Amino acid sequence: MPAAFYNRAMTQPTLDFWLEYASTYSYPAAERISTLAKNAGVTVHWRPFLLGPIFAAQGWDTSPFNLYPQKGRYMWRDLERICGRHNLPLRRLEKFPQNSLVAARVALVGFDESWGDDFSRAVYRAEFGDGRDIGDTAVIADILRSLSRDADAVLARAQTTENKARLRAQTEEAQKLGIFGAPAFVTADGELFWGNDRLEDALAWALRFTR
Amino acid sequence: MPAAFYNRAMTQPTLDFWLEYASTYSYPAAERISTLAKNAGVTVHWRPFLLGPIFAAQGWDTSPFNLYPQKGRYMWRDLERICGRHNLPLRRLEKFPQNSLVAARVALVGFDESWGDDFSRAVYRAEFGDGRDIGDTAVIADILRSLSRDADAVLARAQTTENKARLRAQTEEAQKLGIFGAPAFVTADGELFWGNDRLEDALAWALRFTR
Repeated sequence: MPAAFYNRAMTQPTLDFWLEYASTYSYPAAERISTLAKNAGVTVHWRPFLLGPIFAAQGWDTSPFNLYPQKGRYMWRDLERICGRHNLPLRRLEKFPQNSLVAARVALVGFDESWGDDFSRAVYRAEFGDGRDIGDTAVIADILRSLSRDADAVLARAQTTENKARLRAQTEEAQKLGIFGAPAFVTADGELFWGNDRLEDALAWALRFTR
Repeated sequence: MPAAFYNRAMTQPTLDFWLEYASTYSYPAAERISTLAKNAGVTVHWRPFLLGPIFAAQGWDTSPFNLYPQKGRYMWRDLERICGRHNLPLRRLEKFPQNSLVAARVALVGFDESWGDDFSRAVYRAEFGDGRDIGDTAVIADILRSLSRDADAVLARAQTTENKARLRAQTEEAQKLGIFGAPAFVTADGELFWGNDRLEDALAWALRFTR
Protein backbone atom coordinates (compact mmCIF):
# COMPACT_ATOMS: atom_id res chain seq x y z
CA MET A 1 0.00 0.00 0.00
CA PRO A 2 1.20 3.55 -0.65
CA ALA A 3 2.77 5.51 2.16
CA ALA A 4 -0.12 7.97 2.02
CA PHE A 5 -2.40 5.24 3.27
CA TYR A 6 -0.36 4.79 6.42
CA ASN A 7 -0.02 8.51 6.96
CA ARG A 8 -3.76 8.97 6.73
CA ALA A 9 -4.48 5.95 8.88
CA MET A 10 -2.15 7.24 11.58
CA THR A 11 -3.80 10.64 11.77
CA GLN A 12 -5.91 10.94 14.91
CA PRO A 13 -9.36 12.21 13.89
CA THR A 14 -10.28 15.46 15.63
CA LEU A 15 -13.29 17.75 15.83
CA ASP A 16 -13.50 21.34 17.06
CA PHE A 17 -16.59 21.90 19.21
CA TRP A 18 -17.52 25.60 19.30
CA LEU A 19 -19.79 26.26 22.26
CA GLU A 20 -21.42 29.31 23.83
CA TYR A 21 -22.57 29.09 27.43
CA ALA A 22 -25.73 31.11 26.84
CA SER A 23 -26.77 28.89 23.94
CA THR A 24 -29.64 26.51 24.58
CA TYR A 25 -28.76 23.91 21.96
CA SER A 26 -25.12 23.87 23.14
CA TYR A 27 -26.43 22.26 26.35
CA PRO A 28 -27.47 18.86 24.88
CA ALA A 29 -24.43 18.96 22.59
CA ALA A 30 -22.08 19.41 25.56
CA GLU A 31 -23.81 16.57 27.37
CA ARG A 32 -23.66 14.22 24.39
CA ILE A 33 -20.35 14.90 22.66
CA SER A 34 -17.85 13.17 24.96
CA THR A 35 -19.46 9.72 24.84
CA LEU A 36 -20.26 9.91 21.14
CA ALA A 37 -16.75 11.08 20.27
CA LYS A 38 -15.12 8.43 22.44
CA ASN A 39 -17.17 5.71 20.77
CA ALA A 40 -16.25 7.10 17.35
CA GLY A 41 -12.56 7.45 18.20
CA VAL A 42 -12.56 11.21 17.62
CA THR A 43 -10.65 13.68 19.82
CA VAL A 44 -12.74 16.77 20.60
CA HIS A 45 -11.27 20.23 21.11
CA TRP A 46 -13.71 22.37 23.08
CA ARG A 47 -13.63 25.96 21.80
CA PRO A 48 -15.70 28.37 23.95
CA PHE A 49 -16.64 31.62 22.22
CA LEU A 50 -19.19 34.44 22.46
CA LEU A 51 -22.12 34.83 20.09
CA GLY A 52 -22.81 38.42 21.19
CA PRO A 53 -20.22 40.07 18.92
CA ILE A 54 -21.26 37.80 16.02
CA PHE A 55 -24.95 38.68 16.48
CA ALA A 56 -24.03 42.37 16.79
CA ALA A 57 -22.23 42.19 13.43
CA GLN A 58 -25.56 41.05 11.92
CA GLY A 59 -27.36 43.98 13.52
CA TRP A 60 -28.89 41.97 16.36
CA ASP A 61 -28.75 43.24 19.95
CA THR A 62 -30.12 40.02 21.45
CA SER A 63 -30.73 36.40 20.54
CA PRO A 64 -32.78 35.75 17.38
CA PHE A 65 -35.03 33.69 19.67
CA ASN A 66 -36.03 36.98 21.32
CA LEU A 67 -36.14 38.97 18.08
CA TYR A 68 -38.47 36.39 16.53
CA PRO A 69 -40.84 35.25 19.30
CA GLN A 70 -42.45 32.44 17.27
CA LYS A 71 -38.99 30.98 16.68
CA GLY A 72 -38.22 31.42 20.37
CA ARG A 73 -41.37 29.61 21.48
CA TYR A 74 -40.59 26.80 19.07
CA MET A 75 -36.99 26.55 20.28
CA TRP A 76 -38.00 26.02 23.91
CA ARG A 77 -40.51 23.34 22.96
CA ASP A 78 -38.02 21.65 20.63
CA LEU A 79 -35.40 21.74 23.39
CA GLU A 80 -37.88 20.20 25.83
CA ARG A 81 -38.36 17.29 23.47
CA ILE A 82 -34.60 16.87 22.98
CA CYS A 83 -33.81 17.11 26.70
CA GLY A 84 -36.65 14.69 27.43
CA ARG A 85 -35.14 12.17 25.06
CA HIS A 86 -31.72 12.45 26.74
CA ASN A 87 -33.05 12.66 30.31
CA LEU A 88 -31.64 16.16 30.79
CA PRO A 89 -33.42 18.52 33.19
CA LEU A 90 -34.67 21.73 31.58
CA ARG A 91 -36.27 24.96 32.75
CA ARG A 92 -37.46 27.71 30.45
CA LEU A 93 -35.44 30.74 31.46
CA GLU A 94 -37.20 34.03 32.05
CA LYS A 95 -33.92 35.88 31.56
CA PHE A 96 -32.53 34.78 28.22
CA PRO A 97 -29.87 34.88 26.97
CA GLN A 98 -27.77 35.01 30.10
CA ASN A 99 -24.43 36.80 30.27
CA SER A 100 -21.89 34.09 29.45
CA LEU A 101 -18.74 36.23 29.53
CA VAL A 102 -17.29 35.08 32.87
CA ALA A 103 -18.23 31.45 32.22
CA ALA A 104 -16.37 31.53 28.88
CA ARG A 105 -13.28 33.14 30.40
CA VAL A 106 -13.21 30.59 33.22
CA ALA A 107 -13.69 27.76 30.72
CA LEU A 108 -10.52 28.78 28.88
CA VAL A 109 -8.62 28.34 32.15
CA GLY A 110 -10.32 24.99 32.69
CA PHE A 111 -9.34 23.70 29.24
CA ASP A 112 -5.71 24.64 29.95
CA GLU A 113 -6.02 22.11 32.73
CA SER A 114 -8.22 19.02 32.78
CA TRP A 115 -11.57 20.24 34.02
CA GLY A 116 -12.91 22.37 31.15
CA ASP A 117 -15.49 19.85 29.95
CA ASP A 118 -16.71 19.06 33.48
CA PHE A 119 -17.02 22.80 34.11
CA SER A 120 -18.92 23.29 30.84
CA ARG A 121 -21.47 20.62 31.64
CA ALA A 122 -21.85 21.98 35.19
CA VAL A 123 -22.50 25.48 33.80
CA TYR A 124 -25.21 24.18 31.46
CA ARG A 125 -26.83 22.14 34.26
CA ALA A 126 -26.85 25.15 36.58
CA GLU A 127 -28.26 27.40 33.87
CA PHE A 128 -30.80 25.28 32.01
CA GLY A 129 -31.38 22.53 34.57
CA ASP A 130 -31.56 24.61 37.77
CA GLY A 131 -32.42 28.02 36.32
CA ARG A 132 -29.44 29.72 37.98
CA ASP A 133 -27.94 32.93 36.59
CA ILE A 134 -24.51 32.10 35.17
CA GLY A 135 -23.91 35.83 34.65
CA ASP A 136 -23.53 36.02 38.43
CA THR A 137 -19.87 35.44 39.33
CA ALA A 138 -20.97 33.93 42.67
CA VAL A 139 -22.74 31.16 40.71
CA ILE A 140 -19.60 30.49 38.69
CA ALA A 141 -17.62 30.38 41.96
CA ASP A 142 -20.09 27.83 43.34
CA ILE A 143 -19.65 25.67 40.27
CA LEU A 144 -15.85 25.86 40.58
CA ARG A 145 -16.04 24.81 44.23
CA SER A 146 -18.34 21.90 43.30
CA LEU A 147 -15.50 20.76 41.03
CA SER A 148 -13.01 21.10 43.93
CA ARG A 149 -11.32 24.12 42.34
CA ASP A 150 -9.96 27.18 44.16
CA ALA A 151 -12.66 29.57 42.94
CA ASP A 152 -10.86 32.80 43.82
CA ALA A 153 -7.61 31.73 42.17
CA VAL A 154 -9.35 30.52 39.01
CA LEU A 155 -11.49 33.66 38.71
CA ALA A 156 -8.39 35.82 39.12
CA ARG A 157 -6.69 33.97 36.25
CA ALA A 158 -9.85 34.15 34.16
CA GLN A 159 -10.04 37.92 34.50
CA THR A 160 -6.45 38.71 33.48
CA THR A 161 -5.96 40.96 30.46
CA GLU A 162 -4.24 38.11 28.67
CA ASN A 163 -7.12 35.67 29.20
CA LYS A 164 -9.71 38.26 28.18
CA ALA A 165 -7.77 38.84 24.96
CA ARG A 166 -7.64 35.09 24.37
CA LEU A 167 -11.45 34.85 24.44
CA ARG A 168 -11.74 37.81 22.07
CA ALA A 169 -9.30 36.13 19.67
CA GLN A 170 -11.20 32.85 19.84
CA THR A 171 -14.48 34.64 19.08
CA GLU A 172 -12.83 36.37 16.10
CA GLU A 173 -11.60 32.98 14.89
CA ALA A 174 -15.15 31.61 15.10
CA GLN A 175 -16.39 34.53 13.03
CA LYS A 176 -13.67 33.95 10.40
CA LEU A 177 -14.68 30.29 10.17
CA GLY A 178 -18.18 31.41 9.19
CA ILE A 179 -19.75 30.41 12.49
CA PHE A 180 -23.03 32.28 13.07
CA GLY A 181 -24.65 30.19 15.81
CA ALA A 182 -23.92 27.59 18.45
CA PRO A 183 -23.12 24.85 18.85
CA ALA A 184 -20.93 24.50 15.77
CA PHE A 185 -18.51 21.75 14.81
CA VAL A 186 -15.54 22.15 12.47
CA THR A 187 -13.53 19.23 11.12
CA ALA A 188 -9.78 19.27 10.44
CA ASP A 189 -10.50 19.83 6.72
CA GLY A 190 -12.66 22.87 7.51
CA GLU A 191 -16.15 21.42 7.15
CA LEU A 192 -18.66 23.39 9.25
CA PHE A 193 -21.70 21.82 10.92
CA TRP A 194 -24.23 23.89 12.86
CA GLY A 195 -26.50 22.66 15.61
CA ASN A 196 -26.80 19.88 18.16
CA ASP A 197 -28.67 17.89 15.52
CA ARG A 198 -25.57 17.82 13.28
CA LEU A 199 -23.20 16.39 15.93
CA GLU A 200 -23.38 12.83 14.61
CA ASP A 201 -22.81 14.03 11.03
CA ALA A 202 -19.80 16.08 12.13
CA LEU A 203 -18.24 13.08 13.88
CA ALA A 204 -18.81 10.92 10.81
CA TRP A 205 -17.16 13.59 8.63
CA ALA A 206 -14.18 13.80 10.99
CA LEU A 207 -13.60 10.08 10.40
CA ARG A 208 -13.81 10.26 6.61
CA PHE A 209 -10.20 11.22 6.01
CA THR A 210 -8.68 9.10 8.71
CA ARG A 211 -10.17 5.68 8.15
CA MET B 1 -59.34 -3.54 28.02
CA PRO B 2 -61.15 -0.20 28.22
CA ALA B 3 -62.99 1.07 25.18
CA ALA B 4 -60.55 3.97 24.96
CA PHE B 5 -57.83 1.52 24.01
CA TYR B 6 -59.74 0.37 20.96
CA ASN B 7 -60.71 3.89 20.00
CA ARG B 8 -57.10 4.97 20.09
CA ALA B 9 -55.91 1.85 18.32
CA MET B 10 -58.41 2.42 15.55
CA THR B 11 -57.37 6.01 14.94
CA GLN B 12 -55.31 6.28 11.78
CA PRO B 13 -52.14 8.25 12.60
CA THR B 14 -51.79 11.36 10.45
CA LEU B 15 -49.24 14.10 9.93
CA ASP B 16 -49.67 17.48 8.25
CA PHE B 17 -46.71 18.31 6.02
CA TRP B 18 -46.44 22.06 5.45
CA LEU B 19 -44.31 22.75 2.40
CA GLU B 20 -43.23 25.81 0.45
CA TYR B 21 -42.03 25.34 -3.13
CA ALA B 22 -39.27 27.97 -2.81
CA SER B 23 -37.87 26.35 0.34
CA THR B 24 -34.63 24.45 -0.04
CA TYR B 25 -35.06 22.10 2.89
CA SER B 26 -38.62 21.27 1.78
CA TYR B 27 -37.00 19.52 -1.22
CA PRO B 28 -35.39 16.58 0.66
CA ALA B 29 -38.42 16.42 2.96
CA ALA B 30 -40.78 16.06 -0.02
CA GLU B 31 -38.54 13.36 -1.48
CA ARG B 32 -38.31 11.42 1.78
CA ILE B 33 -41.70 11.71 3.44
CA SER B 34 -43.83 9.29 1.41
CA THR B 35 -41.62 6.23 1.94
CA LEU B 36 -40.91 7.02 5.59
CA ALA B 37 -44.59 7.65 6.35
CA LYS B 38 -45.69 4.49 4.53
CA ASN B 39 -43.21 2.41 6.53
CA ALA B 40 -44.40 4.04 9.74
CA GLY B 41 -48.09 3.61 8.91
CA VAL B 42 -48.77 7.36 8.99
CA THR B 43 -51.07 9.15 6.52
CA VAL B 44 -49.56 12.44 5.34
CA HIS B 45 -51.61 15.49 4.41
CA TRP B 46 -49.57 17.76 2.16
CA ARG B 47 -50.31 21.42 2.96
CA PRO B 48 -48.68 23.85 0.52
CA PHE B 49 -48.34 27.41 1.81
CA LEU B 50 -46.36 30.58 1.18
CA LEU B 51 -43.58 31.80 3.44
CA GLY B 52 -43.52 35.28 1.88
CA PRO B 53 -46.41 36.71 3.97
CA ILE B 54 -45.00 35.07 7.11
CA PHE B 55 -41.54 36.52 6.50
CA ALA B 56 -43.09 39.91 5.73
CA ALA B 57 -44.87 39.85 9.11
CA GLN B 58 -41.41 39.52 10.71
CA GLY B 59 -40.15 42.49 8.75
CA TRP B 60 -38.25 40.45 6.16
CA ASP B 61 -38.58 41.22 2.45
CA THR B 62 -36.65 38.13 1.35
CA SER B 63 -35.37 34.81 2.70
CA PRO B 64 -33.29 34.95 5.90
CA PHE B 65 -30.68 33.06 3.85
CA ASN B 66 -30.27 36.24 1.79
CA LEU B 67 -30.56 38.62 4.74
CA TYR B 68 -27.82 36.72 6.60
CA PRO B 69 -25.27 35.67 3.96
CA GLN B 70 -23.21 33.46 6.31
CA LYS B 71 -26.33 31.50 7.13
CA GLY B 72 -27.13 31.34 3.42
CA ARG B 73 -23.69 30.00 2.51
CA TYR B 74 -23.96 27.41 5.26
CA MET B 75 -27.46 26.38 4.14
CA TRP B 76 -26.34 25.58 0.59
CA ARG B 77 -23.39 23.54 1.84
CA ASP B 78 -25.56 21.74 4.39
CA LEU B 79 -28.12 21.01 1.69
CA GLU B 80 -25.38 19.63 -0.58
CA ARG B 81 -24.41 17.18 2.13
CA ILE B 82 -28.05 16.16 2.72
CA CYS B 83 -28.83 15.77 -1.00
CA GLY B 84 -25.58 13.83 -1.44
CA ARG B 85 -26.65 11.40 1.26
CA HIS B 86 -30.03 10.83 -0.41
CA ASN B 87 -28.72 10.84 -4.00
CA LEU B 88 -30.72 13.94 -4.90
CA PRO B 89 -29.37 16.26 -7.59
CA LEU B 90 -28.73 19.82 -6.42
CA ARG B 91 -27.73 23.12 -8.02
CA ARG B 92 -27.10 26.30 -6.09
CA LEU B 93 -29.62 28.76 -7.45
CA GLU B 94 -28.48 32.23 -8.49
CA LYS B 95 -32.03 33.51 -8.20
CA PHE B 96 -33.24 32.60 -4.73
CA PRO B 97 -35.88 32.38 -3.48
CA GLN B 98 -37.94 31.72 -6.57
CA ASN B 99 -41.54 32.84 -6.93
CA SER B 100 -43.57 29.85 -5.75
CA LEU B 101 -47.05 31.36 -6.05
CA VAL B 102 -48.23 29.55 -9.19
CA ALA B 103 -46.67 26.27 -8.10
CA ALA B 104 -48.54 26.43 -4.79
CA ARG B 105 -51.84 27.26 -6.46
CA VAL B 106 -51.43 24.40 -8.92
CA ALA B 107 -50.48 22.04 -6.10
CA LEU B 108 -53.81 22.69 -4.37
CA VAL B 109 -55.56 21.51 -7.54
CA GLY B 110 -53.27 18.48 -7.64
CA PHE B 111 -54.05 17.49 -4.07
CA ASP B 112 -57.79 17.67 -4.85
CA GLU B 113 -56.99 14.90 -7.29
CA SER B 114 -54.28 12.27 -6.99
CA TRP B 115 -51.17 13.91 -8.40
CA GLY B 116 -50.26 16.58 -5.82
CA ASP B 117 -47.29 14.75 -4.34
CA ASP B 118 -45.90 13.76 -7.76
CA PHE B 119 -46.27 17.37 -8.86
CA SER B 120 -44.53 18.60 -5.71
CA ARG B 121 -41.53 16.35 -6.19
CA ALA B 122 -41.36 17.30 -9.88
CA VAL B 123 -41.35 21.01 -8.96
CA TYR B 124 -38.48 20.52 -6.51
CA ARG B 125 -36.50 18.45 -9.03
CA ALA B 126 -37.00 21.12 -11.73
CA GLU B 127 -36.05 23.90 -9.33
CA PHE B 128 -33.18 22.54 -7.26
CA GLY B 129 -32.09 19.63 -9.46
CA ASP B 130 -32.23 21.28 -12.88
CA GLY B 131 -32.05 24.96 -11.89
CA ARG B 132 -35.25 25.87 -13.73
CA ASP B 133 -37.32 28.90 -12.72
CA ILE B 134 -40.56 27.66 -11.19
CA GLY B 135 -41.82 31.25 -11.12
CA ASP B 136 -42.20 30.90 -14.90
CA THR B 137 -45.69 29.57 -15.67
CA ALA B 138 -44.29 27.85 -18.79
CA VAL B 139 -42.07 25.72 -16.55
CA ILE B 140 -45.07 24.75 -14.41
CA ALA B 141 -46.96 23.89 -17.61
CA ASP B 142 -44.04 21.67 -18.70
CA ILE B 143 -44.13 19.87 -15.37
CA LEU B 144 -47.88 19.33 -15.67
CA ARG B 145 -47.46 17.88 -19.16
CA SER B 146 -44.69 15.56 -17.88
CA LEU B 147 -47.31 14.23 -15.46
CA SER B 148 -49.79 13.76 -18.34
CA ARG B 149 -52.01 16.59 -17.15
CA ASP B 150 -53.87 19.11 -19.29
CA ALA B 151 -51.66 22.08 -18.41
CA ASP B 152 -54.01 24.80 -19.68
CA ALA B 153 -57.04 23.38 -17.87
CA VAL B 154 -55.14 22.91 -14.60
CA LEU B 155 -53.61 26.39 -14.73
CA ALA B 156 -57.05 27.90 -15.36
CA ARG B 157 -58.42 26.14 -12.29
CA ALA B 158 -55.37 27.14 -10.26
CA GLN B 159 -55.85 30.82 -11.09
CA THR B 160 -59.53 31.07 -10.14
CA THR B 161 -60.45 33.56 -7.42
CA GLU B 162 -61.64 30.70 -5.26
CA ASN B 163 -58.38 28.76 -5.51
CA LYS B 164 -56.31 31.89 -4.85
CA ALA B 165 -58.35 32.51 -1.70
CA ARG B 166 -57.82 28.91 -0.66
CA LEU B 167 -54.02 29.34 -0.75
CA ARG B 168 -54.29 32.58 1.23
CA ALA B 169 -56.43 30.81 3.86
CA GLN B 170 -53.97 27.93 4.06
CA THR B 171 -51.07 30.36 4.56
CA GLU B 172 -53.03 32.13 7.32
CA GLU B 173 -53.65 28.77 8.96
CA ALA B 174 -49.91 28.03 8.91
CA GLN B 175 -49.24 31.37 10.57
CA LYS B 176 -51.83 30.65 13.27
CA LEU B 177 -50.19 27.30 13.94
CA GLY B 178 -46.95 29.14 14.74
CA ILE B 179 -45.19 28.02 11.56
CA PHE B 180 -42.30 30.36 10.71
CA GLY B 181 -40.29 28.27 8.25
CA ALA B 182 -40.51 25.27 5.97
CA PRO B 183 -40.81 22.39 5.93
CA ALA B 184 -42.92 22.06 9.05
CA PHE B 185 -44.83 19.07 10.38
CA VAL B 186 -47.85 19.22 12.68
CA THR B 187 -49.33 16.19 14.41
CA ALA B 188 -53.03 15.64 15.13
CA ASP B 189 -52.47 16.79 18.73
CA GLY B 190 -50.88 20.05 17.54
CA GLU B 191 -47.18 19.29 18.04
CA LEU B 192 -45.04 21.39 15.68
CA PHE B 193 -41.76 20.20 14.18
CA TRP B 194 -39.63 22.41 11.97
CA GLY B 195 -37.12 21.27 9.38
CA ASN B 196 -36.31 18.29 7.20
CA ASP B 197 -34.14 17.02 10.05
CA ARG B 198 -37.20 16.69 12.31
CA LEU B 199 -39.23 14.54 9.89
CA GLU B 200 -38.45 11.26 11.65
CA ASP B 201 -39.26 12.80 15.06
CA ALA B 202 -42.58 14.11 13.74
CA LEU B 203 -43.56 10.68 12.39
CA ALA B 204 -42.65 9.07 15.73
CA TRP B 205 -44.77 11.66 17.54
CA ALA B 206 -47.71 11.03 15.21
CA LEU B 207 -47.62 7.37 16.29
CA ARG B 208 -47.48 8.08 20.02
CA PHE B 209 -51.23 8.44 20.52
CA THR B 210 -52.32 5.76 18.15
CA ARG B 211 -50.26 2.74 19.18
